[in-house]
Amino acid sequence: MSETDAPDADDEPRTSERLVELAKRRGYFFQSSGAYGGVGGFYTFGPQGAALKGNVEDAWRERFAVREGHMEIDAPTIMPEPVFEASGHLDTFDDMLVECPECGESHRADHVVEDNTEYEDAEGLPIPEVEEVIAEYELVCPSCGAGLAGQDVEDFNLMFATNIGPGDAQPGYLRPETAQGIFVEFPRLKEYARNTLPFGVTQIGRAYRNEISPRRSIIRVRELTQAELELFVDPEGDGPDLTDVEDVPVTLYPAAEQNAADGRAYETTVGEAIAAGTIADPWIGYFLGVAAEWYESIGVDMDRLRFRQHLAGERSHYASDCWDAESEIDGNWIELTGFAHRGDYDLSKHDAHSDERFTIFTQYDEPKTVERAVVDPDMSYLGPEFGGDAGRVVEELEALAARDRSAFDGDGVTVEVDGERREIPVEKTGFAVEEQTEAGEHIVPHVIEPSFGVDRLVYTVLHHAYREDEVDGEPRTYLELDPEIAPTFVGVFPLQSDDALEEEAREIAATLRAEGLSVTYDDSGNIGRRYRRQDEVGTPFCVTVDYESLDDEAVTVRERDTTAQKRLPIADLPETLAALRSGEVSFDELAE
Amino acid sequence: MSETDAPDADDEPRTSERLVELAKRRGYFFQSSGAYGGVGGFYTFGPQGAALKGNVEDAWRERFAVREGHMEIDAPTIMPEPVFEASGHLDTFDDMLVECPECGESHRADHVVEDNTEYEDAEGLPIPEVEEVIAEYELVCPSCGAGLAGQDVEDFNLMFATNIGPGDAQPGYLRPETAQGIFVEFPRLKEYARNTLPFGVTQIGRAYRNEISPRRSIIRVRELTQAELELFVDPEGDGPDLTDVEDVPVTLYPAAEQNAADGRAYETTVGEAIAAGTIADPWIGYFLGVAAEWYESIGVDMDRLRFRQHLAGERSHYASDCWDAESEIDGNWIELTGFAHRGDYDLSKHDAHSDERFTIFTQYDEPKTVERAVVDPDMSYLGPEFGGDAGRVVEELEALAARDRSAFDGDGVTVEVDGERREIPVEKTGFAVEEQTEAGEHIVPHVIEPSFGVDRLVYTVLHHAYREDEVDGEPRTYLELDPEIAPTFVGVFPLQSDDALEEEAREIAATLRAEGLSVTYDDSGNIGRRYRRQDEVGTPFCVTVDYESLDDEAVTVRERDTTAQKRLPIADLPETLAALRSGEVSFDELAE
Repeated sequence: MSETDAPDADDEPRTSERLVELAKRRGYFFQSSGAYGGVGGFYTFGPQGAALKGNVEDAWRERFAVREGHMEIDAPTIMPEPVFEASGHLDTFDDMLVECPECGESHRADHVVEDNTEYEDAEGLPIPEVEEVIAEYELVCPSCGAGLAGQDVEDFNLMFATNIGPGDAQPGYLRPETAQGIFVEFPRLKEYARNTLPFGVTQIGRAYRNEISPRRSIIRVRELTQAELELFVDPEGDGPDLTDVEDVPVTLYPAAEQNAADGRAYETTVGEAIAAGTIADPWIGYFLGVAAEWYESIGVDMDRLRFRQHLAGERSHYASDCWDAESEIDGNWIELTGFAHRGDYDLSKHDAHSDERFTIFTQYDEPKTVERAVVDPDMSYLGPEFGGDAGRVVEELEALAARDRSAFDGDGVTVEVDGERREIPVEKTGFAVEEQTEAGEHIVPHVIEPSFGVDRLVYTVLHHAYREDEVDGEPRTYLELDPEIAPTFVGVFPLQSDDALEEEAREIAATLRAEGLSVTYDDSGNIGRRYRRQDEVGTPFCVTVDYESLDDEAVTVRERDTTAQKRLPIADLPETLAALRSGEVSFDELAE
Repeated sequence: MSETDAPDADDEPRTSERLVELAKRRGYFFQSSGAYGGVGGFYTFGPQGAALKGNVEDAWRERFAVREGHMEIDAPTIMPEPVFEASGHLDTFDDMLVECPECGESHRADHVVEDNTEYEDAEGLPIPEVEEVIAEYELVCPSCGAGLAGQDVEDFNLMFATNIGPGDAQPGYLRPETAQGIFVEFPRLKEYARNTLPFGVTQIGRAYRNEISPRRSIIRVRELTQAELELFVDPEGDGPDLTDVEDVPVTLYPAAEQNAADGRAYETTVGEAIAAGTIADPWIGYFLGVAAEWYESIGVDMDRLRFRQHLAGERSHYASDCWDAESEIDGNWIELTGFAHRGDYDLSKHDAHSDERFTIFTQYDEPKTVERAVVDPDMSYLGPEFGGDAGRVVEELEALAARDRSAFDGDGVTVEVDGERREIPVEKTGFAVEEQTEAGEHIVPHVIEPSFGVDRLVYTVLHHAYREDEVDGEPRTYLELDPEIAPTFVGVFPLQSDDALEEEAREIAATLRAEGLSVTYDDSGNIGRRYRRQDEVGTPFCVTVDYESLDDEAVTVRERDTTAQKRLPIADLPETLAALRSGEVSFDELAE
């Protein structure tokens, strides 16, 4: 969620403001429940936005699930409390809250500090220190200006809580990340993967964060869509095949550069960065490369994207390395994707907290011979001697043999059952050290996680596509969206209100739709206005049927970015437009 | 949610039990968070289930949004309290709860009554009567057998509640239906539809119902996926074009037949049912026809599907007509889709409760001339006479003229301002009756709603596809899924473990994937086991590469249902399989 200032911030009026206005007017996104005053952090994707978001999700699925051969699942968004006790979210998924004594408004204490002092990372400070800073700097409520000194700063858990079933016996939480829906089902998922590492599981779905102060349109919201991939790997196993990604150019901003006085982001390749040790884990390098190519394919401006390594203090304690993909938005860098090496943290936690095993059996290359201390107690002695406790005594003997062979060195051995010491002659324990051949072992897989925020991706794609120019002396706004991602690929219009033209245009629209293209038909308002409407929506091409079309069976095709027009035969439209969509041919190259 | 006994219920072991076992083992669906004991009513779709569900959703989108020309949106699942005050869910979205005094278990009181008495629709009874029935029949707790007589029966609201932001100042609820996310945004959506009726808005997403007793696998769950279409129509406008649906056969079970002693469901066509008045509203008839064809296209067994009309007592008070599509599952009929004519209920409610107008301006065919009584008061008289109250006096005069022209018949007219009577000479009011021409009026559109439960659709498709037979004397289970819906379309295998065979098989898999087919590659276990695995998953075709393939460039293609095999050239596979998928050609018709 870092939103640090980028070096190229400037004082131009912000594109974001104009984009947000366009987004509402044209049906990309807008704050929800506006009729009731709206609620901070909840946005509705209108028809264009839902289509764009769906296209981004489909593109992600194609690249990160299908092409990688991973499994996609679909888990509930409400999960029971024990899941989040295990994951640590119940204890630590907090932000610092300070409430204004005058107006009662709640604020993130760390943001109040960062916005008004020289502290840059107040989130990392302990609460007492934040309270001290607030007092020392005499910080005030951003809403009403009342002094905040002396107010308690509290941890506020960001999970939305609810109750499952009647009463409050079964607390539930809206998942703060889709990942837990994958981790908690590992014992079943490994079966579907036929117990073979590595395997990946993906999920696209809602996640929830009850932000204290939601901000900046769909960038920091309370209900978001994530696309996450959890790759389970053998920590001793082979890394990824880097052939396809090693030459991919990436802009990196490693921790060392961030810490250096004159440090800066620089361009390199995935292969070089791994060779240089800048990217420590080859799997992280692999996904940085795959993601870089994918961002570009959906229209992210790669001159405005960087991979920033987490600083040591910023990383979750369990993550051995973590990089964020960040996009530049009006001079700020916002997090698009986190690439984390989570080690065995998640599966170990669930293994420890639940009744199931979160391990997988991995075979050794060669079977190993190991020595094991075992017992084989003489029950004809233990039974009469210990009665109902005999079973417990055997268990304790087994545990002791595994733990400390030397305990069996003497004549007798002592174990404790329910606080009582029981002594057994060693000769009755059947103690022995045996050689055993083992084919493999049960290990807790490690997790590599690329975690994408879909809303922010949508926002970035729109922001990076936002253009203003002049056409025929008139100012124009358009979205230079990639044809494969644009919500609508082609607009079809009759030149003017006329039954014959409308019929022909509708027929063309139906034909193109049947070819699988996303088509809009529009006959309202003058033709110039209809072009502008599609420009603002980002529709790459428009087809206009005029009176001549009825004779020459041809139409005018207009390209969005250049507004250039060409006359093309109606019969060729499906093929020509499909070629334009896939990028097989450019509009420029088309013969009239 | 009706689950009435179907006439063809029998005592055979239930397919459902076997299906649920298969679903877990093969990755269709399973109860979530099993490692923590699971929670009633929450299910995870595994890799096969998520793919099948995605295919069903895509097919729905294609038919009910794209082909109908409707807009799809994507709204948050958490909505603020005022929305549900307006919609009525806060007051009336309840089930009857009775808690056992012994074990503390909560039960649906109406279910306890229905399961143990001759009452068939206890949900419709008032609470005191339910309490009486429980006492009279000495009904007991289904969990522990303790008597429930004397226990309070209470309304339990089925919405999951949470708090938005810190504290409890802003209650929020998980939406009980996706529909509210559409209704509440009507003022914006109508702009995107350019203020023209009819227009439709769809949404596919999560909905939540905090069921007291979730039951029967994914049929009655607490978190579900809905696909809803809200069609906004002019109540005076033209109905739908029925050309494409009038000949569609439908099995109807109208209210009259349900009420008749020897009533039964019968087959007719949409056109006939509308002509006979059985289906009162043509829009409802239209969607019954569209849905019937669509169910069949995704593999619902149409001999096990009926459209049942709601009985008068069963209908929501605002719905003028309502039909449920029901599918037969092990002798019970379960609701798949509700088709409701909701009148102006939803938009009127939000219009009354919010600050925005939920109306649309509709133009008359011809402008209308209407007489309006107006005033044009002489302010040089009213000003000095009434001082600061003059403005209020004008307002009251305007209201009075619109309400009661005869008040201006005398010399003086009296209005009340803040409880004080003010008399004004009629000649100073500028009263006149004028003719005005009006182009149209603001109306509240009516809503036609087909509302689909996606989880139940998935369950029905699987249940209706479940088959058991014998192959070579061995019992076999397979899913006869439609090729366009099946999660995996083709399995590709090397006949046995061999580098050359595996390489060839992988190459074929990659080629077919590039053609857009859903492919699984499998080289584990013997070939028979791999066939059985794909049979259970419902994969329509398998391709096996053997040693001969390396010479003759041909492979064995096996069909799931018949287990018939044919030898086909590798080069033809993409085209042949695509034709099999679209149904252009059948396996039978293929030449070897």
